[in-house]
Amino acid sequence: MSHLADRVKNPDVQKNVWVEFVGLAMENQALNVGQGFPNFPPIQHVMDGLSSIPVENHLNNQYTRGFGHAPFIQALGDFYGPLFDRKLDVHNEILVTVGAYYSLYAATQALINPGDEAIIIEPFFDCYAPMVRYAGGTPKFIPLKPAGKANDANDWKLDMDHLQSLVTDKTKVIFFNNPNNPLGKVFTHEEIQALCDFCIKNDIICLADEVYEHLAYNPQPHLRIGNYPGMYERTITMGSAGKTWSCTGWKIGWSIGPPDLIKAMQIVWQNSIYTCATPLQEACARSFRLEMERPFDGHPKDNPDSYFRTLTEVELKPKREKMAKILESVGMKPIIPNGGYFMIADASPLAKIIPEAELDDSNDPWDYKAVRWMCRQKKIAAIPNSAFYSEGHKKEYENYIRFCFAKDDATLDKFEEMMVAGFKQ
Amino acid sequence: MSHLADRVKNPDVQKNVWVEFVGLAMENQALNVGQGFPNFPPIQHVMDGLSSIPVENHLNNQYTRGFGHAPFIQALGDFYGPLFDRKLDVHNEILVTVGAYYSLYAATQALINPGDEAIIIEPFFDCYAPMVRYAGGTPKFIPLKPAGKANDANDWKLDMDHLQSLVTDKTKVIFFNNPNNPLGKVFTHEEIQALCDFCIKNDIICLADEVYEHLAYNPQPHLRIGNYPGMYERTITMGSAGKTWSCTGWKIGWSIGPPDLIKAMQIVWQNSIYTCATPLQEACARSFRLEMERPFDGHPKDNPDSYFRTLTEVELKPKREKMAKILESVGMKPIIPNGGYFMIADASPLAKIIPEAELDDSNDPWDYKAVRWMCRQKKIAAIPNSAFYSEGHKKEYENYIRFCFAKDDATLDKFEEMMVAGFKQ
Ligand SMILES: Cc1ncc(COP(=O)(O)O)c(C=O)c1O
Ligand SMILES: Cc1ncc(COP(=O)(O)O)c(C=O)c1O
Repeated sequence: MSHLADRVKNPDVQKNVWVEFVGLAMENQALNVGQGFPNFPPIQHVMDGLSSIPVENHLNNQYTRGFGHAPFIQALGDFYGPLFDRKLDVHNEILVTVGAYYSLYAATQALINPGDEAIIIEPFFDCYAPMVRYAGGTPKFIPLKPAGKANDANDWKLDMDHLQSLVTDKTKVIFFNNPNNPLGKVFTHEEIQALCDFCIKNDIICLADEVYEHLAYNPQPHLRIGNYPGMYERTITMGSAGKTWSCTGWKIGWSIGPPDLIKAMQIVWQNSIYTCATPLQEACARSFRLEMERPFDGHPKDNPDSYFRTLTEVELKPKREKMAKILESVGMKPIIPNGGYFMIADASPLAKIIPEAELDDSNDPWDYKAVRWMCRQKKIAAIPNSAFYSEGHKKEYENYIRFCFAKDDATLDKFEEMMVAGFKQ
Repeated sequence: MSHLADRVKNPDVQKNVWVEFVGLAMENQALNVGQGFPNFPPIQHVMDGLSSIPVENHLNNQYTRGFGHAPFIQALGDFYGPLFDRKLDVHNEILVTVGAYYSLYAATQALINPGDEAIIIEPFFDCYAPMVRYAGGTPKFIPLKPAGKANDANDWKLDMDHLQSLVTDKTKVIFFNNPNNPLGKVFTHEEIQALCDFCIKNDIICLADEVYEHLAYNPQPHLRIGNYPGMYERTITMGSAGKTWSCTGWKIGWSIGPPDLIKAMQIVWQNSIYTCATPLQEACARSFRLEMERPFDGHPKDNPDSYFRTLTEVELKPKREKMAKILESVGMKPIIPNGGYFMIADASPLAKIIPEAELDDSNDPWDYKAVRWMCRQKKIAAIPNSAFYSEGHKKEYENYIRFCFAKDDATLDKFEEMMVAGFKQ
């Protein structure tokens, strides 16, 4: 590897849980209840949009404005402006990116110098830590800890004194994923206010990963940290069309924030991609417009026909119950999420059925091995929960496995059948 | 900007010619004969593909394999394997990216350490230099120099002794754009062989930007440097669906090369994007398959109905003649390209009509000011040629303006009319 740059030689940036476990699921033709994508159709209007756009006006197949297709940033401005209580300057306060994933990347590149530190709340979407390291920074980790009812995601709490103790003069940013993947915690007003005080007091920028913003289950509202007093100017809020419209394969995302931070991200963008796919942006623009056309009061979700509401309350909520029931029926202990479409469950009661002797002999945490075993032996693909923890904390959380319940009924039925057949004690 | 990382504070990575000139064209509602996109429809089968894919199988709207959608890498392998005289290991020798632009970025990130040097042949696609600097490297520039018939792009030559003199023990890569944008030179066998000898002798990696590979005009064939003896293992060959199928707005590109180099680019990829849009990749896969179905002998282009042939020989060649004629009719001196859809022209004979006094008073080269003036005063949007040169060489090449002739007849007719009205002496 003599020609390669040092940044790609760092083993910490070489690992990727998706590359391994998505590959394993394909190899074993396993039932995929792990990876975070709905296997039911996206809402019809996004599919219809994408179908008609390339032929309706052929210029929608050509390059568009680099930092975001004009009709799309306008739609995003109209949608998010009221939610942030401000008129957004769409040219300077929005950047459209290749998924929220790239927004996270652009933000770390824009903000983190070698030697800087970034605080990451565990469990965390796995790319945060390698992105920080890729930029030359050092991640500092703090786990949410279960307290109170152990089966409610919202009873996992952040110890604010512990958080404060992580701060040094190198601390630049905190990653704040709300609703959280994989846990499904939706932070309360008091919790967010405490985080705001923390950011302001310590002069820290907040990277607010809100890709599951529309997937908070009643009665738990999703609150935007970027809309708290004193926070807009230090927050980059990131969203995802893939999660919003159930079309993860489109990889359209966005960042919203103050002009100085967005400008810095635009510089990263123009040096690496320059512009995002036009037909997908045009389709997203139309879908936002369609959802905004129904009368609502405050948030489009207030209209009972809103996709933001029907997806969570009508489609996903029963799936959440069903997933919990299936996991419980074989003795696992699920943590019920208040947002998103993941559920982690304590799988240690299955240890008798997943015999130590049949696990691979890597040094990986138990859940990695158990998930590999399940995929190979039982043809069920899930994701190890400790993939969402730092090296130092993995062992403490290796008893959990992450499942995704955004799956059609046939898949969930099949899952139930396979779980009962494979694990019923 | 106190929170920002140093990498985005470098003024050399902040500038972007597209951001300025695309913006200016929109503001002035100018006729766009500058930016490199066809304003005629892409080939029907790519549009039809994209139209049917999202609804035909709704899973085409969800995440796919990270380093490239399986049917697409398979199609790329089947298409390019024979052209490289080898069976490609599609999982390890191909990376699908967000346009060829991101392939260029991933390659610079994968190869260039701070302090390393990269050789760039001028004129060059403008992002090469800032990408090298963004990675912490130093670009070294060498211009192609006119010799022989001054109006033939292929008479611009590389001085191989000069090239050798740029090499130091820090030289890591050379960017080799063939066919070249903006000049339209298509390198000959002898020229490529000399570059191969140079790369091998000096142990330099070749970044072969071949996005215009299918746009070489008969009788000048496009030859692949990655297919020369001893070169595959040190070459990353980059292609673009946008340029191949005339759908620049799709932003699907790819890199093909030896597993060690592709692996390093995959690491950059998984830390910044993870996966490319599924419906667009699926549509590209189908279009490659369709073009490969017609009988051919060596290259699909050998079939007279091949899009690779009809686009260049039937559609673009007459446009090239027309563009040259228009530019000559007002006294400019065009350089006839042998590949691609750009034409640069010496615009200095227009200096009487573009009066010095009416130009903006920036310190920019003459072509920047002349192009701004044309856009504002004459509503014609072109691109300054010196944007494709390093600071040190801009002034030498500031007499040229770049035009794009991949425009429908109505646009070219309108262009003719506006040029004659505005510049006829
Ligand atoms: C918390 C979180 N952030 C970001 C992303 C990436 O979103 P996108 O697909 O829009 O890149 C995901 C995807 O699973 C996620 O779970
Ligand atoms: C020489 C060259 N390389 C790369 C690109 C970028 O291609 P893509 O649109 O596939 O990112 C262009 C686009 O104009 C180009 O001219």
